[in-house]
Amino acid sequence: MKRKAEIRVAQIGYQFMGRAHANAWRQAGRFFELPVRPVLQVVCGRNGGAAEEAAERLGFAEHSSAWQEVVARPDIDVVDICTPGDSHREIALAAAAAGKAILCEKPLANTLAEAEEMLAGVRARDLLDMVCHNYRRAPAVLLAKRLIDEGRLGRIHHFRGTYLQDWIVDPAFPRVWRLERARAGSGALGDIASHSIDLARFLVGEIREVSGLLETFVAERPLEGGGRGPVDVDDAALALLRFESGAVGTVEGSRFAPGRKNYNRFEINGSRGSLAFDLERMNELELYEESGPESGFRTILATDPSHPFVDAWWPPGHVLGYEHTFIHTVVDFVRAFAAGERVRPDFEDGVRNQRVLDAIERSSARRAWQPA
Amino acid sequence: MKRKAEIRVAQIGYQFMGRAHANAWRQAGRFFELPVRPVLQVVCGRNGGAAEEAAERLGFAEHSSAWQEVVARPDIDVVDICTPGDSHREIALAAAAAGKAILCEKPLANTLAEAEEMLAGVRARDLLDMVCHNYRRAPAVLLAKRLIDEGRLGRIHHFRGTYLQDWIVDPAFPRVWRLERARAGSGALGDIASHSIDLARFLVGEIREVSGLLETFVAERPLEGGGRGPVDVDDAALALLRFESGAVGTVEGSRFAPGRKNYNRFEINGSRGSLAFDLERMNELELYEESGPESGFRTILATDPSHPFVDAWWPPGHVLGYEHTFIHTVVDFVRAFAAGERVRPDFEDGVRNQRVLDAIERSSARRAWQPA
Amino acid sequence: MKRKAEIRVAQIGYQFMGRAHANAWRQAGRFFELPVRPVLQVVCGRNGGAAEEAAERLGFAEHSSAWQEVVARPDIDVVDICTPGDSHREIALAAAAAGKAILCEKPLANTLAEAEEMLAGVRARDLLDMVCHNYRRAPAVLLAKRLIDEGRLGRIHHFRGTYLQDWIVDPAFPRVWRLERARAGSGALGDIASHSIDLARFLVGEIREVSGLLETFVAERPLEGGGRGPVDVDDAALALLRFESGAVGTVEGSRFAPGRKNYNRFEINGSRGSLAFDLERMNELELYEESGPESGFRTILATDPSHPFVDAWWPPGHVLGYEHTFIHTVVDFVRAFAAGERVRPDFEDGVRNQRVLDAIERSSARRAWQPA
Amino acid sequence: MKRKAEIRVAQIGYQFMGRAHANAWRQAGRFFELPVRPVLQVVCGRNGGAAEEAAERLGFAEHSSAWQEVVARPDIDVVDICTPGDSHREIALAAAAAGKAILCEKPLANTLAEAEEMLAGVRARDLLDMVCHNYRRAPAVLLAKRLIDEGRLGRIHHFRGTYLQDWIVDPAFPRVWRLERARAGSGALGDIASHSIDLARFLVGEIREVSGLLETFVAERPLEGGGRGPVDVDDAALALLRFESGAVGTVEGSRFAPGRKNYNRFEINGSRGSLAFDLERMNELELYEESGPESGFRTILATDPSHPFVDAWWPPGHVLGYEHTFIHTVVDFVRAFAAGERVRPDFEDGVRNQRVLDAIERSSARRAWQPA
Repeated sequence: MKRKAEIRVAQIGYQFMGRAHANAWRQAGRFFELPVRPVLQVVCGRNGGAAEEAAERLGFAEHSSAWQEVVARPDIDVVDICTPGDSHREIALAAAAAGKAILCEKPLANTLAEAEEMLAGVRARDLLDMVCHNYRRAPAVLLAKRLIDEGRLGRIHHFRGTYLQDWIVDPAFPRVWRLERARAGSGALGDIASHSIDLARFLVGEIREVSGLLETFVAERPLEGGGRGPVDVDDAALALLRFESGAVGTVEGSRFAPGRKNYNRFEINGSRGSLAFDLERMNELELYEESGPESGFRTILATDPSHPFVDAWWPPGHVLGYEHTFIHTVVDFVRAFAAGERVRPDFEDGVRNQRVLDAIERSSARRAWQPA
Repeated sequence: MKRKAEIRVAQIGYQFMGRAHANAWRQAGRFFELPVRPVLQVVCGRNGGAAEEAAERLGFAEHSSAWQEVVARPDIDVVDICTPGDSHREIALAAAAAGKAILCEKPLANTLAEAEEMLAGVRARDLLDMVCHNYRRAPAVLLAKRLIDEGRLGRIHHFRGTYLQDWIVDPAFPRVWRLERARAGSGALGDIASHSIDLARFLVGEIREVSGLLETFVAERPLEGGGRGPVDVDDAALALLRFESGAVGTVEGSRFAPGRKNYNRFEINGSRGSLAFDLERMNELELYEESGPESGFRTILATDPSHPFVDAWWPPGHVLGYEHTFIHTVVDFVRAFAAGERVRPDFEDGVRNQRVLDAIERSSARRAWQPA
Repeated sequence: MKRKAEIRVAQIGYQFMGRAHANAWRQAGRFFELPVRPVLQVVCGRNGGAAEEAAERLGFAEHSSAWQEVVARPDIDVVDICTPGDSHREIALAAAAAGKAILCEKPLANTLAEAEEMLAGVRARDLLDMVCHNYRRAPAVLLAKRLIDEGRLGRIHHFRGTYLQDWIVDPAFPRVWRLERARAGSGALGDIASHSIDLARFLVGEIREVSGLLETFVAERPLEGGGRGPVDVDDAALALLRFESGAVGTVEGSRFAPGRKNYNRFEINGSRGSLAFDLERMNELELYEESGPESGFRTILATDPSHPFVDAWWPPGHVLGYEHTFIHTVVDFVRAFAAGERVRPDFEDGVRNQRVLDAIERSSARRAWQPA
Repeated sequence: MKRKAEIRVAQIGYQFMGRAHANAWRQAGRFFELPVRPVLQVVCGRNGGAAEEAAERLGFAEHSSAWQEVVARPDIDVVDICTPGDSHREIALAAAAAGKAILCEKPLANTLAEAEEMLAGVRARDLLDMVCHNYRRAPAVLLAKRLIDEGRLGRIHHFRGTYLQDWIVDPAFPRVWRLERARAGSGALGDIASHSIDLARFLVGEIREVSGLLETFVAERPLEGGGRGPVDVDDAALALLRFESGAVGTVEGSRFAPGRKNYNRFEINGSRGSLAFDLERMNELELYEESGPESGFRTILATDPSHPFVDAWWPPGHVLGYEHTFIHTVVDFVRAFAAGERVRPDFEDGVRNQRVLDAIERSSARRAWQPA
């Protein structure tokens, strides 16, 4: 196979996630040796004027309000889906039909059925597919993975994941799209607890069954256009977990935790040690290794050149930020593209994640444990 | 009623808990103005020689190996039960029959039925009864209670309690009495999760229903006399909680969390703020109050004279320790005794706690939510 | 020599320090095996009524307002000096003349000359003398000492000590005795920086020379009886240090640091590792040992039975408080008394500490380095 | 004056600092509305091949090994100096002679005399000049500045700055250029303590006098080409400070603090509150405001849209990294350029900083306080 010198990206969406992805495409090759050069070819959005402005700001060569045409263009190599969950299926299937590599924001879809359809679509064509659970590629998280894989924690007994935010605790906060089931699929469950579930699967393994609890504290909110509308998604999602390995755990996502802004935290306890991570201090990993009476949780500053992805950046102690997790995701995506290999988390990971979300919803409704 | 000048204590048990209680009886009057003076009259234990040594060391005037006789003595005012849970019922009922005030270690009993019997016993005689959930009286915890009662957190949405230790994570650790159902009633559930449940009830209110998970990671352990024996209690206990108030929560007790020595931690999120406490840093309370962009979790050093129980001790920043929680418990017990009033947590609290423990066990067995 | 079964204590003073010392004398034998039993024989104070109340509360058999007579009594073994610094010399010399063992609060005296006179007094009679720098005997500090002595930090390069409080930052706070040179000798320098200097000497070794800075931010304050009076002591004391060993350091004491209540903190950097301690979290020791890319500062919870003094108390994770440092001091004092051995820090340590304080004062006045 | 649409940058140097600056020039316009568009025109370096590679990687249109020609080119608007300190003077004077705006890495020069010459050079032409003390523009530091300026801390009494690293603690570490006086000017003093001094000046005001201590622990090190060479710069620099305002302080820079990777920390105590910052947790600001018994140090996550520079980035809790401080510096530089205004810190700030460094060196040599 003739290796292409460039990889041309069509990005669908330019809001919050779109800005993070575009930055990743721009920056990846500035700090990492890449086998092919990413080209920010076109950004798509419904609103032509805003898309034009986004193209200029984000650095895309073109803009378009017709993503259907763009994803079919022969010069496009990658479709990067940064839209809300209700459009993932349609875009991904079209991109798959056109044979494109696909990077898709999480959760993969708004329902398990849609996610499975997307997986079938990409697998039928043997395409490169990746779901953007970007937190896997924080250096501290990858370091946690390395330590677990090396057996430094022994057999894992416990996973304790919380993803807490506070932006809707005020009942006067409006009923935005993320609080609408038709657009967002679910509330805290799919938006943030899904990240904790991805980290649980990444670090501890597959989840066998769950007992879930969904709760909506504020059932009705002001509409942005005036009047009030119902909140039909969960404000908080909690679950007990049993893993295939025999480990047990908890996972919780809530947007009702004042003071927790982006508190994606986990703690893992194994037979020989423990690990803890908090996204608000994403350059740190807490490690406990049992080594006698002078043991203690130590704060590893995950900025050593030997830590994953770090040597491309700055000297020890010079910290990275949120956006770097996207850059690292894109770096691995591009390398996989060039090598003709697969990369994780892929759409199958997305489907497995969705199965856990689905089981939590079922369990909450049926008030009993459900297989994931 | 003629007020007695002294309150004579018979303490049953002199091991770990017995040492903590005896210290509390000795120290209470040294730092607090008490209406009656505690007298450490007699300490009871099965082994006469050891009881004698304990009396000498702990400061009791007498020792005895016949608690049945002691609790019936007319000069004894208080029976303080510091034995394992399998003897609580018998001692408490005898003390109640003799009309004594009773302070009893937690959990109140090994089963709900026993606990209810004990409650009936004391209520029949209208006695002073208290269960020693000592952590309620850490100044930082009482400060948390005060802040919640003042409405500083608004409506409570979340409780997140974990009590983690690591002393049995090594499979070679022996099958001590705390791992034996006949003696201890349960494992992490009754020993440590029960503390988290007491704090949940104290701070957030009654628990309506639970979904529980009990797990034993190491099913068999060396016996101290040689050979191996089964572990028939839980190594870890987890539960989802729904409170009467509408709040939701999690509680977890485990002795398999390396590096967590006595990590009795809770976080509470309300509509206006959040609180967090960790027993390993028991002089601190974390408080978040929403007050604009310069808000943040603040570490209150709970050593201000205005904080509960603190003015009897040292100046600000001069910290207290574990044993002080028992001293504060005894202070309130003695004051209630002298005033002829009740004090919390009483045996009814003990029963309510036990109902939650019982519901977690049932839920774990039936794999479905259970009323508490 | 016939070993006495008891050691009879006469304590001079019953305020803050007096309460801490009396508690130590009462508690030492309850938790530690002591070769002789401390007897709280008599407490002395100028005000007879208050002394009587103190005897009752603190547990002394007698009280007196005539310390001169008491220290000469043949039944008294130990004189424990808990008064302000301006009376240390007189009491200590009388006690020495009477051949008593002496435990004296820090700083040893208000001036170097007085301290040297006291040292000469006790050395002439070969008595047991100890100055109560109680923080040396926090388990975490003793653990720091053990680690340094074992060479775990390698060669020490840096000491960084701060002792910060905030109780006089308000200019309306009255001119209490601690702000009066005639009574207190100095301000933050002798009261709190002296603790940091003691820890520096204990952990790093003798100080060769200093460059000091004393500052009084609020020169005049309300008098308690009305009117205003001058503050003739330092509000803050800072110094650069050069140690005999070649290490360099800083020390700072201030009562003008809002939010720092009893922030006696040090950090030590050696060629192979670092240590940090903060009295507000006195059960913790931070240790960094260079061991490759997963190194990090670890929080040792200094509550392991193997840590100094801990096995007499509670299981791991059950923390100690401020008062325990005095108990440990008394334990070692009593053991030394019974064994006829010496114990540190003794009056010579007190004098050496005072030499550093004196050098800081001189250096501040002369604006140049001074030998210590 | 006709406003230019673009600002063309010639950057001298492409190593560590060069990479950080180039990234800032590339990214500034992607996240911020800029009045003119930065163009990365040419990067200069001694080694032509490496400069070519740097141009490609960093995104410059051209490269050159003749900076003298480049800085004189009429199409160049800005000269950005990212080389070691020994070349700053020559480049800056040439750029000034050509009338260019200048952004210069810190410290401004290797000696005070050179720095003053540079200042005279730019002031003679009334050019835009800025020294890149990038840490001023961490959002948490700017927030600290805002709080101080608003009077939230009251009158400032104390500044306590440390900048600690550990990369040369191993005596086998080679004698790199930063340990050579001829290249680097000084050691920890100019490299890192100068940052603390800049922050002290920024936040507390001008420094009136200092007592300094410089120490070299390892006097000789392996040369990279073989053999051994002397270390003629300081390994650690410490100083006592007196500010014009009456505040006092300490500053310390050391590369001999194991575990401290980039520990640029300061604490400031005022009459009404305190502030603390640590670059290793650069998204956080610790604030204490005296507000009664529930006061405490609070951790402000400096990621609120209202915090300086933050609204251009991500939602609350999504943290920034080291490189963002350079981007913010460039944003303000570009805005000042377009507006024809000045920006701080400028070359005069660089000179004032250098005067403090110079005074510390003099004081260390003369063993007495020196005016700054």
